[in-house]
Amino acid sequence: MKTNVSTLLEIKYPVIQGGMAWVAEYHLASAVSNAGGLGIIGSANAPATWVKDQIQKMKQLTKQPFGVNVMLLSPHVEEVAHVLAEEKVAVVTTGAGNPEPYMKLWKDAGIKVIPVVASVAMAKRMERLQADALIVEGTEAGGHIGESTTMTLVPQIVDAVHIPVIAAGGIGDGRGMAAAFMLGAQGIQMGTGFVVTKESLVHENYKKAILKAKDIDSKVTGRSTGHPVRSIRNQMTNEYLKKEKEGATFEELEYLTLGGLKKAVVDGDVINGSVMAGQIAGLLKEERSCKELIHSIVGEAEELMKGNKIYG
Amino acid sequence: MKTNVSTLLEIKYPVIQGGMAWVAEYHLASAVSNAGGLGIIGSANAPATWVKDQIQKMKQLTKQPFGVNVMLLSPHVEEVAHVLAEEKVAVVTTGAGNPEPYMKLWKDAGIKVIPVVASVAMAKRMERLQADALIVEGTEAGGHIGESTTMTLVPQIVDAVHIPVIAAGGIGDGRGMAAAFMLGAQGIQMGTGFVVTKESLVHENYKKAILKAKDIDSKVTGRSTGHPVRSIRNQMTNEYLKKEKEGATFEELEYLTLGGLKKAVVDGDVINGSVMAGQIAGLLKEERSCKELIHSIVGEAEELMKGNKIYG
Repeated sequence: MKTNVSTLLEIKYPVIQGGMAWVAEYHLASAVSNAGGLGIIGSANAPATWVKDQIQKMKQLTKQPFGVNVMLLSPHVEEVAHVLAEEKVAVVTTGAGNPEPYMKLWKDAGIKVIPVVASVAMAKRMERLQADALIVEGTEAGGHIGESTTMTLVPQIVDAVHIPVIAAGGIGDGRGMAAAFMLGAQGIQMGTGFVVTKESLVHENYKKAILKAKDIDSKVTGRSTGHPVRSIRNQMTNEYLKKEKEGATFEELEYLTLGGLKKAVVDGDVINGSVMAGQIAGLLKEERSCKELIHSIVGEAEELMKGNKIYG
Repeated sequence: MKTNVSTLLEIKYPVIQGGMAWVAEYHLASAVSNAGGLGIIGSANAPATWVKDQIQKMKQLTKQPFGVNVMLLSPHVEEVAHVLAEEKVAVVTTGAGNPEPYMKLWKDAGIKVIPVVASVAMAKRMERLQADALIVEGTEAGGHIGESTTMTLVPQIVDAVHIPVIAAGGIGDGRGMAAAFMLGAQGIQMGTGFVVTKESLVHENYKKAILKAKDIDSKVTGRSTGHPVRSIRNQMTNEYLKKEKEGATFEELEYLTLGGLKKAVVDGDVINGSVMAGQIAGLLKEERSCKELIHSIVGEAEELMKGNKIYG
């Protein structure tokens, strides 16, 4: 499946794995890259030494291109940015901020820069900064989210920019991929789908919580604080939403989720932890290898789009 | 474009106009039906005499099938339900409740019943009640909404039921229609798109507010009350969201939107009124006739899906 995205990134299938904090490490990312997609290491708030170590382990496990997600609010962002340039990773995806201060550094190192955006204005701004492509993420995604849905945001951004668009949020099978392509995307990013693969090292409880989730089992906390986050509903989200409705302070609310993602991913505490996942969790029913997942999605999408050339 | 939905409803194109309160009256609905879609009269809280009058005017303006949307919380629902059976309208769509008490009445009159649903559980329940098809509406829609997006909800409901699914929420052009079909829908319902047609009698200010809206210009009020509503942001939504954050009572909040839709649609007060519209407002740039809109959407969708037979 050749598109402008697969050509740009020199990968077999235009399927990118989300750079999820605590989840996106080298075992998962190398499996994705070896299966023909683009594996991503999520650097989140990690120090540069951790990122460098992950990159070097990736290089031992795959000869295929891979990327690193940079969380621009990280206290280590400056150092991490330089490590990525030194290591000349193929791709950087960015979230939670403006990558402008690092664009020249990365582009000079030959890195393809792909910001995650959730509005037309941000998309246009990133294009002006010489971004190579955009990940357009709808509110149905897991973790930190915007307000617009994939269905409405993708075509509006496709119309507004000239660089390739990768759709994210709500995609869990070939139907979702084909739909994203109809909307004008030329690639997809999946998060929740990759969390429940065999190569994903998250705690078994975390995978089970996603695999047994129904369509309406995700909740958005933090809308009142301006930092909405989507997770599978549990005791934490119930308590958070109750306190939020009562007008609790930002600090009180923050306390409820402090270390919550690690609690869920690493310790398997899916009662009090933050079980971040997208609305598409309700569609995911089985644990598969990254290769099985990618092949199944791409095969189904190709079958649905058979005969048309829009992805050619 | 022949699908199970167009065959079931005996219409040329599987495009249904949303039964929007104050907007969906016989001028608009007859234009939609005459253009090959399914026009719908929105009965909302109107008395049965108004509904009967609208139906009779429709019958003078079109020989094509049309429908009526029943708002099940209406104080006049009982009487309205009987008028629909007497008048033998082709289709009833239902919202805001459970149509069970009227199913036998309508089915005995030969009416096709199509509930609007926003979850898998409700979809299955409506199938058990002998619904003929379902309108699956994502949170990107305008007016009263659920939480799941079109992208995630449509495939989950398609997998859960055996009756045809009509996708609603976030569809404004042929790309959206083609995407909905890839997700497994066999028809679409559009609301906001039809509000801004030439035949729509809403106030010019209301149309302008939609046509000039950007991607992020819709806001959801009432999430804290359990009755979320999407509108174009204005002084009313700003004030509502501020009060909501401060923990205002249900009554205080209700007061802000009392008669708000009529204020916007009829009086053109788009500052204090409820300018209900979906997120796709950002994509809509021009006023067209219903015929132009339907032909453009269907033509574009067919072009995108050329060669595949999934809608055949």
